[in-house]
Amino acid sequence: MCEAVLTFAEEMEAVNAYGWAARDSSGILSPFHFTRRHEIVGEVTEVGSNVTKFKVGDIAGVGCMVGSCGSCSNCTRDLENYCPNMIWTYNKRYHDGSITYGGYSDKFVVEEHFAVRIPDNLPLEGVAPMLCAGITVYSPMKHFGLLERGKHLGVVGLGGLGHMAVKFAKAIGVEVTVISTSPNKKKEAMEKLGADHFLISHNQEEMQVAMGTLDGIIDTVSAPHSLSPLLDLLMTDGKLVVVGAPLQPPELPVFPLIIGRKLIAGSATGGMKETREMIDFAAKYNITADVEIIPMDYVNTAFERVAKADVKYRFVIDVANTLNSPY
Amino acid sequence: MCEAVLTFAEEMEAVNAYGWAARDSSGILSPFHFTRRHEIVGEVTEVGSNVTKFKVGDIAGVGCMVGSCGSCSNCTRDLENYCPNMIWTYNKRYHDGSITYGGYSDKFVVEEHFAVRIPDNLPLEGVAPMLCAGITVYSPMKHFGLLERGKHLGVVGLGGLGHMAVKFAKAIGVEVTVISTSPNKKKEAMEKLGADHFLISHNQEEMQVAMGTLDGIIDTVSAPHSLSPLLDLLMTDGKLVVVGAPLQPPELPVFPLIIGRKLIAGSATGGMKETREMIDFAAKYNITADVEIIPMDYVNTAFERVAKADVKYRFVIDVANTLNSPY
Repeated sequence: MCEAVLTFAEEMEAVNAYGWAARDSSGILSPFHFTRRHEIVGEVTEVGSNVTKFKVGDIAGVGCMVGSCGSCSNCTRDLENYCPNMIWTYNKRYHDGSITYGGYSDKFVVEEHFAVRIPDNLPLEGVAPMLCAGITVYSPMKHFGLLERGKHLGVVGLGGLGHMAVKFAKAIGVEVTVISTSPNKKKEAMEKLGADHFLISHNQEEMQVAMGTLDGIIDTVSAPHSLSPLLDLLMTDGKLVVVGAPLQPPELPVFPLIIGRKLIAGSATGGMKETREMIDFAAKYNITADVEIIPMDYVNTAFERVAKADVKYRFVIDVANTLNSPY
Repeated sequence: MCEAVLTFAEEMEAVNAYGWAARDSSGILSPFHFTRRHEIVGEVTEVGSNVTKFKVGDIAGVGCMVGSCGSCSNCTRDLENYCPNMIWTYNKRYHDGSITYGGYSDKFVVEEHFAVRIPDNLPLEGVAPMLCAGITVYSPMKHFGLLERGKHLGVVGLGGLGHMAVKFAKAIGVEVTVISTSPNKKKEAMEKLGADHFLISHNQEEMQVAMGTLDGIIDTVSAPHSLSPLLDLLMTDGKLVVVGAPLQPPELPVFPLIIGRKLIAGSATGGMKETREMIDFAAKYNITADVEIIPMDYVNTAFERVAKADVKYRFVIDVANTLNSPY
């Protein structure tokens, strides 16, 4: 179950590893999107001499970042994710000049600060996608005061991010409205995930009835879409938080912002402290991502299916059992 | 000095009044902009039998609203300005079906809740523009945590609203950067109003140096302009608050919002409780608007000059001394 062997070190050191990677430009997904799927969980097999938080045999996870400067105003308030020198898990240059190659590999070396201990009661395969998809919605829900019982949250898009947002919200009794372009997601949203309401975004009648009812919205859709109908769903002081960036900037409807003191914010993953908090929250309420487990050699087919949105809701690669190391 | 005679009543009642109004469509300014300049200060000459907060002889002011439903979720938390049934001071229908005619008049009848007592130490002519222009910037500065010593505030546009934002901020030691298209406003901004920095928005070198330095920005400009350079000036968690609505929606730069957890919000005037708080703040720090006092029959010329931005920073009409009543 995605048990890439993890090696923890207080300093980065060379470890032989073998994995899959896109070797030329034929990859279907862009590096940005690609990175966001590099969420890794595995068993600790080695620890450096100064490592204090992990021991061999622990289960640990790594999200979308593996390093940051540690001293800027963001790092010092647990917002490593907004550090200007934050190092993504995949395809970025590490402090020592080496390239970060992601987690499609038999071994992974990481500084302990950027690893999260996974509690025993959570299944590994369901935890891996939380370390990027989960924290990407958990963080703004917490930060903007939307993960509070009594609030009414809108979730735009029911994919890897959206289904996590619904799960977090319903765990503590937040009222949830899922907003989607796909009528065929209604049953899943309401019956399986427990959402309270479901709106088809192009059904003006439905949208009209729901106007002014939401405290906040987590918008997970990066495909082009108008923000006006979403702002209309918000009550005064409502917050629309965008976590997916469209290639073309949408229009900003200023007047609706002004007459309701509404806001549009962005948010990118979360800090390590908040990621640990999210895992604790998930363990308490027994929340994991819904996943489809695949072998390593299915990865290219999986990419094709991701491009068609044909996955509920994340593929998880069983690296440990399906990657044949040459060593 | 703008001493329109005010009559306070617990219920609206008919009082004969005489004033100036646009009688046909030849008015230069749109009703929306026009309304925002209806800020009224005067002496109380009558009070209704249930009025408790004012007595004859008090100096009082009225801002841009004269009524609201009093019972909705906004009214009950002192946000009458966001009540869906809020009644603007000018050109709207009052509870009893009558039209609200604004303040270019010898008498003005208002429910006491929508009047503000003006402290003795503030000159009337400088207070009038605060009841709309002042509160329009004070409210978001307070609400979004930008009116706090140690913060660094950007003010876009140095007009009626912008100059009040600078005055409020400097009164308590907020660091202020004025951002303007007009180099000739630099001296005024820094020497007269005490701003700490001045940026020409189209000077890319200046803007580059200031990137990531601001906690928040109050954007008072309703002329079309790009929001990207302003978002770049914000640090992580920075807030861009827009109080002027352009006719055409600008582009929303989503990516800069996401990678810095920044937000764009709107804000419209303020509630009555906050307006009173602003007047107390102004009295404490001896803050008033900079104005040019004009007689009633100069009003059309004044409108022409407003359209050319030829005013520092608000015209105030001396209705009491220059309006010749036929009664």
